[in-house]
Amino acid sequence: MSTPIRIGIAGYGNLGRGVEAAIAHNDDLELVGVFTRREPASVQTLRPETPVFAHDDLAARTADIDVLILCGGSKNDLPEQSPELAALFNIVDSFDTHARIPAHFAAVDAPARAAGKTALISSGWDPGMFSINRVYGEALLPDGDTYTFWGRGLSQGHSDAVRRVPGVAGGVQYTIPNEQAIAAVRSGSRPTLSTREKHTRDCFVVLAEGADAAAVREAIVTMPDYFADYDTTVTFISADELAQDHAAMPHGGFVIRSGNTGEGNSQVIEYSLTLESNPEFTASVLVASARAVHRLNQRGQVGAHTVFDVAPGLFSPKSAAELRAELL
Amino acid sequence: MSTPIRIGIAGYGNLGRGVEAAIAHNDDLELVGVFTRREPASVQTLRPETPVFAHDDLAARTADIDVLILCGGSKNDLPEQSPELAALFNIVDSFDTHARIPAHFAAVDAPARAAGKTALISSGWDPGMFSINRVYGEALLPDGDTYTFWGRGLSQGHSDAVRRVPGVAGGVQYTIPNEQAIAAVRSGSRPTLSTREKHTRDCFVVLAEGADAAAVREAIVTMPDYFADYDTTVTFISADELAQDHAAMPHGGFVIRSGNTGEGNSQVIEYSLTLESNPEFTASVLVASARAVHRLNQRGQVGAHTVFDVAPGLFSPKSAAELRAELL
Repeated sequence: MSTPIRIGIAGYGNLGRGVEAAIAHNDDLELVGVFTRREPASVQTLRPETPVFAHDDLAARTADIDVLILCGGSKNDLPEQSPELAALFNIVDSFDTHARIPAHFAAVDAPARAAGKTALISSGWDPGMFSINRVYGEALLPDGDTYTFWGRGLSQGHSDAVRRVPGVAGGVQYTIPNEQAIAAVRSGSRPTLSTREKHTRDCFVVLAEGADAAAVREAIVTMPDYFADYDTTVTFISADELAQDHAAMPHGGFVIRSGNTGEGNSQVIEYSLTLESNPEFTASVLVASARAVHRLNQRGQVGAHTVFDVAPGLFSPKSAAELRAELL
Repeated sequence: MSTPIRIGIAGYGNLGRGVEAAIAHNDDLELVGVFTRREPASVQTLRPETPVFAHDDLAARTADIDVLILCGGSKNDLPEQSPELAALFNIVDSFDTHARIPAHFAAVDAPARAAGKTALISSGWDPGMFSINRVYGEALLPDGDTYTFWGRGLSQGHSDAVRRVPGVAGGVQYTIPNEQAIAAVRSGSRPTLSTREKHTRDCFVVLAEGADAAAVREAIVTMPDYFADYDTTVTFISADELAQDHAAMPHGGFVIRSGNTGEGNSQVIEYSLTLESNPEFTASVLVASARAVHRLNQRGQVGAHTVFDVAPGLFSPKSAAELRAELL
């Protein structure tokens, strides 16, 4: 094994913790430390030996870090941090606001290119592994339809939306894929499915003191964009139940490409994830992505990239010859 | 759309026919013709407008073909044809003798590199899409196990083995994945499975006149490598039943990576194919591979490649910007 690839973590929430844990599973990677905007001494890391530095120290550490993994949020952190840090480091981020990806790509590409750095944006599982499977599916079966289902899983965005409803003291939302819809898609019949037919939404809500349950339920199920187009159930629970039964972050889903070849033979490709920890899996993808980014940069491939631009073998610690002999 | 990519087909069996059909689904590809070692006039193509040429004419057609798709067999055709034709054309093949892949790669790499040509060997679904998923799975979940199941599907190699048994006038073999084994793998329990526990084999056999059924059955189920390590059932049928019920070529299977992250959270990745036509799906992969090979060659990436070396986006007719906007 050659010199380890030196990784930095920028931002230390669930995703940053997942990256810290994932690096420990990869012998060819070495964690330089966590960089946080909080007071470093206040941050308790998973592994006591992980150094914690101030975010503002990053600019002085460019020589010590081969790839920086950005673990901030897509709403406020990454739109600012990714372009800024791509001018200093090879970076990986998990920017997941699908509609804003082209703009984010452009914003990262220019500074990275100017600095001779390589960036991989929007890695993770969706965007990320699911996107890869949408591309392969469409390319292999041009006469076909692609279906993405999510869940069963805890949706951070929808949970946040529930918690913003007046009268809600706490809560979570699970996205549930419709089993009948999945079965129809798997059959190769290429059904047309409405939003309502694909997923249902289950909310578990703790009421604030004195809140009106019926009004809260109504405010949730009629919320535009988030719930109005779905069949949504709202179950009221206690704060203790919320803490005890809903602290885990499972997620997953399915990308199915159903198409026809030749005289109409049905061909179905399915990719699915069943994740006990959504942030830990996303983190695992980011860590393998950091390896790929390091290699791309060593080959002189600078600027912004997405998972579509990265050959599968670059994610693996094994050499191309090892992969051919062992996994082809 | 720019000038179409001009594709040649070398070899015209089930796979070549599948390639001919698949090209018709891709507007950016154009079929130059089929090249056969049979008498061209004797070959009836799927589409009446498809030109048929003699295999020996290939060397004179290097200026007319951007990528040649080799549709011969891995046993006798490709070991000879791929190195020879990689010196003249960009090529794609579906060489599937796993143990011989490193040697085949080396044999193709040298002439392709010397001639400035690009070759993609061992494309298809296994090797091919399944291999890609083995690489991603291992890279994303280093603490994990990979399981490949095949079927339910008609196995050409095992059907051939059945037909070589004295007393057999005809027959087919289906590989059946064990549902209990798949369920155990999907659960995340990471079981250790024997060969016998993973698959069973079902043979449908037409006896030659006067053949001894018991002896034929015994010869099949005890055949080393092919059947001895499996629970095999042999059902005797008539030649009519064979023709009527067993002419289709379904196949498929599953690649499952089951691993753990963080404090032991279970994460399961599954890729599965349900194919009504095995050769048509393999052909669809080869056709998308031809597009990728053309692009690699245009970028100056010459020599032998495998699917591990090719970025997913290169298989798609869409530009990188389109893919980012539409599928990421």
